[in-house]
Amino acid sequence: MATDRIATVAPVPEAAATGKVAAVYADIKATKNITFVPNMWRVLATNPDHLELVWTRLKAIMHPEASGRTSPLDPLTRELIALAVSATNGCSYCVNSHTAAARKLGLGVEALGEVMAVIALFNSTNAIADGYQIEPDILPPQE
Amino acid sequence: MATDRIATVAPVPEAAATGKVAAVYADIKATKNITFVPNMWRVLATNPDHLELVWTRLKAIMHPEASGRTSPLDPLTRELIALAVSATNGCSYCVNSHTAAARKLGLGVEALGEVMAVIALFNSTNAIADGYQIEPDILPPQE
Amino acid sequence: MATDRIATVAPVPEAAATGKVAAVYADIKATKNITFVPNMWRVLATNPDHLELVWTRLKAIMHPEASGRTSPLDPLTRELIALAVSATNGCSYCVNSHTAAARKLGLGVEALGEVMAVIALFNSTNAIADGYQIEPDILPPQE
Amino acid sequence: MATDRIATVAPVPEAAATGKVAAVYADIKATKNITFVPNMWRVLATNPDHLELVWTRLKAIMHPEASGRTSPLDPLTRELIALAVSATNGCSYCVNSHTAAARKLGLGVEALGEVMAVIALFNSTNAIADGYQIEPDILPPQE
Amino acid sequence: MATDRIATVAPVPEAAATGKVAAVYADIKATKNITFVPNMWRVLATNPDHLELVWTRLKAIMHPEASGRTSPLDPLTRELIALAVSATNGCSYCVNSHTAAARKLGLGVEALGEVMAVIALFNSTNAIADGYQIEPDILPPQE
Amino acid sequence: MATDRIATVAPVPEAAATGKVAAVYADIKATKNITFVPNMWRVLATNPDHLELVWTRLKAIMHPEASGRTSPLDPLTRELIALAVSATNGCSYCVNSHTAAARKLGLGVEALGEVMAVIALFNSTNAIADGYQIEPDILPPQE
Repeated sequence: MATDRIATVAPVPEAAATGKVAAVYADIKATKNITFVPNMWRVLATNPDHLELVWTRLKAIMHPEASGRTSPLDPLTRELIALAVSATNGCSYCVNSHTAAARKLGLGVEALGEVMAVIALFNSTNAIADGYQIEPDILPPQE
Repeated sequence: MATDRIATVAPVPEAAATGKVAAVYADIKATKNITFVPNMWRVLATNPDHLELVWTRLKAIMHPEASGRTSPLDPLTRELIALAVSATNGCSYCVNSHTAAARKLGLGVEALGEVMAVIALFNSTNAIADGYQIEPDILPPQE
Repeated sequence: MATDRIATVAPVPEAAATGKVAAVYADIKATKNITFVPNMWRVLATNPDHLELVWTRLKAIMHPEASGRTSPLDPLTRELIALAVSATNGCSYCVNSHTAAARKLGLGVEALGEVMAVIALFNSTNAIADGYQIEPDILPPQE
Repeated sequence: MATDRIATVAPVPEAAATGKVAAVYADIKATKNITFVPNMWRVLATNPDHLELVWTRLKAIMHPEASGRTSPLDPLTRELIALAVSATNGCSYCVNSHTAAARKLGLGVEALGEVMAVIALFNSTNAIADGYQIEPDILPPQE
Repeated sequence: MATDRIATVAPVPEAAATGKVAAVYADIKATKNITFVPNMWRVLATNPDHLELVWTRLKAIMHPEASGRTSPLDPLTRELIALAVSATNGCSYCVNSHTAAARKLGLGVEALGEVMAVIALFNSTNAIADGYQIEPDILPPQE
Repeated sequence: MATDRIATVAPVPEAAATGKVAAVYADIKATKNITFVPNMWRVLATNPDHLELVWTRLKAIMHPEASGRTSPLDPLTRELIALAVSATNGCSYCVNSHTAAARKLGLGVEALGEVMAVIALFNSTNAIADGYQIEPDILPPQE
């Protein structure tokens, strides 16, 4: 759109990015193999240090191989955890973004329904456990 | 312990269970292959209809094979989604219970750290997306 | 609208419903005495098992007489509890839906203000109790 | 107990209360017809202005008759809304306190189970509505 | 717009305000030095007692000098605390309103980024502390 | 205590720390000028990469000078934002830790009461804004 204004701050357009911001934008597009910089990052770019802090952390956790790390979790499992957090918090941007990512990784609509079933079930039992103040059954497992 | 009192209500001891409660207790132990009835269910048993409603739903979603269903999600993935919900809500009983279940399914301590890393990361970005009121990038994927 | 697209999945139109989905749709309209299937259920229908699990549970709790149960709570009290949960979680769909239901059951605008006053007050004292980590006064009442 | 230390601040003991704090303590005991000042108020007393602000607001909303107001909500309904908020937020102090108040007003253990069923159900559907980003069905009712 | 309808209730227009509502509207505009009555207050006016309770409390805490009080917190710090609460709860109206207020008090876009960095960081560590059920290090400081 | 067991995992004792963990432990103690490693970090050390990611981010945001950055926010303001987030989420560990840090920076008990008053007020108005689905008054301020 013409104004390029969203959110409570004006995002930094790709054409206006320089220095640290331009470098992070380029790394985001290369690492995620996408052709545009999502709104989240263009908004974060209004504070370049914070942009870099969030991106390097997300890259290490969600793109471990690109950060020289290995992860016991596969990419779809990571997205499903992200979706569970986002649905529980009721974050619109995040639900849209992680649903899209999970679908891109092959999650079908019916399987998404199973994910929602698990998310919904445990938001329910969380309310029961807190609503009755139920105490733990057992000592937590430790090594 | 002697008093068998926890939570805001007195749980129904296994020895005192009859009818619908006794049937659900037996099904819980058989389906989960455990030798005791966890506090959650003993507290829910103070309202037998609610006990049955929660148990049949949890059984269908978390033990699909025992309910004649199939699920595209494996048991560990389901527990990790449950843990993500519980950590986000800050529910002690639930965090303890789903951590124990995930550990029993083979999740190691370092892998649990990767799960926590994903949970923590997206609680962080959820606050950023909501805190800046960032609008969705794209229309959600649909069939 | 033409596209019938809402949410992150395309809802199942009434005209396209068959089998389990058609049966649940019919039961929703009959039990709630409404002439359309709300978005919530049409979205859940993308996973028929989950649709049925949520509907049978909601029917048992919110329409107990239609499920052969009795409830000590009247319908308006149940809707006010639902509204309290939804306002606390900040769920738009749910606030709209439960406000409409409570209004239909006779709640006036000024009375809705009293409900909001109670909801707002205790979200406030919850933050105080947690923010100071205040310990319980007394042992919970038990039988 | 001997130390009179709870929470992140030391509560103001009744014997040490003077001026505004003593007046509020007396009004709390008279209005609620109790013989001690609950921890919440003794902690709030570390800032007398805030103690007074919270108390006068709670008195107006929860004890309307003592404030020269009338309320369309009965005392038990108000406590159930408070409990719904507290269970959803997972606030221990608040769950204990509002459960005790509801029990004192006559709510039985099985009826508490119906309340928990409603609270749990809608924490579940809230997660579904937010997790799928379901849009409202209808325009909200207005006068 | 023509209809003056927002939210789940129709707000009370300034032209229609009488008695207690008109008095609070006037005090809001004078105390905040603004020329219109924000939606929040016009919606609350559907229950005049609640309008007055919320306004007198907000005035005492956020405009202490106008209430004959002094506060150790400066106005910007108070708005940043409000923004932290609102971002954590994901409340759109509140994020927009407190961001606007903080900007008006001189907070620049890059400084807003530092605020978001702190908010995001601790939503992250909160999930870690709750997700691992980490116990307090030390007894809380008390006088 | 003797067992050194807390949380759902066994924390890594200082005496057992090597490599990356030992380096982070040393940096925490030096940067924060403390003589022990808090539980949060000893638990995170069960996954050394995550320990390092969280610490380097927290150091950059909360100890900017030690990271070669400057911040427009003073240390106490940062702790108050952290406390607002933690009280809103109801995170015990975090409330205790940030209250202790704010007290160490000079916040008195009565001033803490003002902070709690602001936190409590806006948890209240957040519930009102979401509970009535109030729409924004104005377009957000942008540059």
